[in-house]
Formats: sequence, C-alpha cells, structure tokens
Amino acid sequence: MPVEIFPVKGLPEVRPGHDITAAIAHCVRTSGPQVLQHDIFVVAQKIVSKAEGRVVRLAEVTPSQRALAWAEAWSKDARVVELVLRETKRVVRMERGLIIAETHHGFVCANAGVDVSNADEGTAILLPQNPDESARALQARLSAAFECHLGVIVSDTFGRAWREGLVNVALGVAGLSPLIDYRGRTDANGRPLHATVIAIADELAAAAELVMRKSERIPVAIVRGVAVESRSGSGAELIRAAEKDLFR
Amino acid sequence: MPVEIFPVKGLPEVRPGHDITAAIAHCVRTSGPQVLQHDIFVVAQKIVSKAEGRVVRLAEVTPSQRALAWAEAWSKDARVVELVLRETKRVVRMERGLIIAETHHGFVCANAGVDVSNADEGTAILLPQNPDESARALQARLSAAFECHLGVIVSDTFGRAWREGLVNVALGVAGLSPLIDYRGRTDANGRPLHATVIAIADELAAAAELVMRKSERIPVAIVRGVAVESRSGSGAELIRAAEKDLFR
Repeated sequence: MPVEIFPVKGLPEVRPGHDITAAIAHCVRTSGPQVLQHDIFVVAQKIVSKAEGRVVRLAEVTPSQRALAWAEAWSKDARVVELVLRETKRVVRMERGLIIAETHHGFVCANAGVDVSNADEGTAILLPQNPDESARALQARLSAAFECHLGVIVSDTFGRAWREGLVNVALGVAGLSPLIDYRGRTDANGRPLHATVIAIADELAAAAELVMRKSERIPVAIVRGVAVESRSGSGAELIRAAEKDLFR
Repeated sequence: MPVEIFPVKGLPEVRPGHDITAAIAHCVRTSGPQVLQHDIFVVAQKIVSKAEGRVVRLAEVTPSQRALAWAEAWSKDARVVELVLRETKRVVRMERGLIIAETHHGFVCANAGVDVSNADEGTAILLPQNPDESARALQARLSAAFECHLGVIVSDTFGRAWREGLVNVALGVAGLSPLIDYRGRTDANGRPLHATVIAIADELAAAAELVMRKSERIPVAIVRGVAVESRSGSGAELIRAAEKDLFR
C-alpha cells in the first residue's frame, strides 16, 4: 500500500472563535476520504491561530523606539516589527533587514512567526500560544468525531539555515511520536545505525504541504499509511535545547 | 486524486559499477506501480554513491595530525575524521565532538556527509561527487526506460540547526524545478504573498522518506501527483549562497 496524502477542500474562511474541528469534520465527511484508524491530520497553523483569536489589529499596536528604528532603517512596518519583538524570547540574528528569532515557545524562525500574508488587511497573525495544546485539542475532538485514533500536526512553513526555500514543519503534535529513534537498531548489514533519529513529524508536515498549496485554500491534509508510534508525543520534542544547539 | 508515495522494494545490495537504473527499472516492473508521466523518483544517496564507487577502504586512509588529535580527543575513528576533513571545504562548527562542515558541493551537514552506517565493515561512503549530475543521468535513463518525463531527486538525511532529528533533503535534482516561487502571486484575499518560496524538492524528499525506512532496504520511492514545474532545475539551487547565509 502506498502512503497517501489527501487535501481537505472547501473549508470556509476561519474567524476568531470558529470551531475548526467541526468545520474540518464537515468537509471531510462531505468531500474527503473515509477516515481510517491512524490517519494523520496536518493542519496549517494559520487557521488554528485565527480560530484561537491570535489576530492583532495593527492600528492597536504602538511600536517601541527599537521597532521604529529598525522599521525606518529597513522600510518595514514598525507595528509588525513591534509584534515580532514581542513574540521574541531571544534574537538569534537581526541584520540586513531580517529578524531570525527564538519565539517564547523555543522555535527559531523568521519574524518570530508573525505573518501578514493570508491575514485580513491591517492585521497580523501570531503563532498559537501553545501549538501542542492546540494539537491535543484537535486530536481529541477529531478522534472522537471519527471514532478512530488519529494523529494531529499543527504545521507552519519555516526557512532553514544553509538552504533556500521554506519547508513545512511540525509546531504542535498529538497522537503520535514526532521522532523515530533508530539508535540501537541495526542496518541491513547488521551494524548498529549511528545517531539516526528521524524527525518523522517534520517529514509528515512536509509531505502534507505537497497538497496544501499556499495560494489556494487548502489548510488541512490527511496523511495515510505511515507507521508511527502512536504514543502521544509533542512538537516541543522537536525543538533542540538551546544548550545543545551550536547555532543560537 | 491524492498524492501517492510508493516504496520500491527488492533492490539488490549495490556495489561499485552496478547499473542502478536497470536495477530500479527491473524492480518497478516486477513489483512496483505502473509508472506515469511526471512521477518523481527519489533515490537515496547511498546507493548512488555505492554505484559510483564513492566507497573508501578505511585501511587505505592515512590520518593527518589534525584528524588524529580530534579523534583522540573525542574517541572517534581517525581515518573517518580524515575523510570528513578531506570532504570539507569549510568547517562551520567543530566542537563537542561534532563536525558540521560545508562540503565541496556547498552542502552544510554533519561529517561532510561521510557515513559508515549501511557501509560494509571497514569502509565509509562519501556523497556523490556531483549529485546533480547523478540525478541527471538517472533522470535521462529512467525517463527513456519508462517512456515518460520523470523527475529524479538524489536524497540524503541531514540534521538541521535548531531542530531535533534528521529529515531527508534533496542533494541532486533533475527533471523538475526544486523551488516553487509564490512571490508575485496573491493569497486567498488577493494580497501579495510575501517572500514565499517553497523548497518543494526537499518536501518531496521528506515525503519519500516516509516509505524509505532506514533499517529496511528501500532506497527508492516514487512520488505521484505533485504538480511541479518540469523545467529541469538542480539541487544546487537549494544551497543558500554563503554570502546570503547568516549561519556560516
């Protein structure tokens, strides 16, 4: 059996307070595949953030001196810069007009995940306050709705060091283990595999992005047929601890 | 139609000089799916390297003083360290027993891609000399064998800054564009999308890894149903130029 990735189409525009579990379940029942045990739902952070009210009116943001200076120097919107700095626990790089920040959650990404694309005019969208909690709530409710054990990944597209382009990664994870640890197992020749831990949740998020096209409205995909440990892990496990990280 | 990812099973152990195109074609014809126009073959670097003879007998490697000192300090095999240093254009980090290196190709990865797992006892496998050339050769020959326009990605699992676990990425690419550029396109609200270039070849490699399990012998997968530009791009396009990179 191949691995299959199904786009979930037809979701309405999400607003603060919307019940996205109900909306996703409705779309899947209407036009999606039959949901099976251990299917993994990958849900774009943007609709989770919107439903959770993580939308800020820029008119209500008063930029600090630091935000004003940076915005002036690099022709940015000072209110957006202010939001980026507020979402930042630690600045990793701030140069050439780019802000690579460690967020309060520990994610390292451009602009601390603050985004004005796919947002209404005059607003910005922040990352969910706790993507693992968002994933756990979706996982419990979708599993109940479809009477299956499902996995849920809340994803966003992040840039990387050293490589061009963004890839979709897992911010929040529930209902599956985000890592597969091959250490202690042996390769095809019976030799121990070295330091091989695969970030399966990030690979699942990347795979889902193949059907979640940015410019269309497909913020959810279902990945089927991937053997994962269904112990409930978390997206936080994918964050390298600062003291182990050579690049912060 | 969902995106589908098929494992290619039954490949023999690859040795230097083996014709892997013929071996892959044979396996797919015997037990794989019917190959379709625009299918993308993701091929693990390891079998490409082996077929191209990028296998080194450690007994024939004489470590330099630098390799001996590092190996001594961190309980490593000095001959493997020597190979890592030879494959390195620039050391990005060399601390706590880890070597993060920029290879001669420009990839930034642990140990310059030198690997002793899945290698015969007493040998190490190097990355292909030119993964794009490897991909182009496979792409031309597989496309001819199946009378289709196919895409080919030569992949390897790399670690990342800031995040735990490895993910599969594209080293060599042929028959497709490795990046999708959404800049200039608009989002669902008609607003321009910002700085959104997706590394689709890396997402395809990650998706393929979902069926290419490390400890089994599945070094090839076929990804079907992803709309990519079929102009022939290269894996080199995925390497961020050193002068644009904030983390080297």
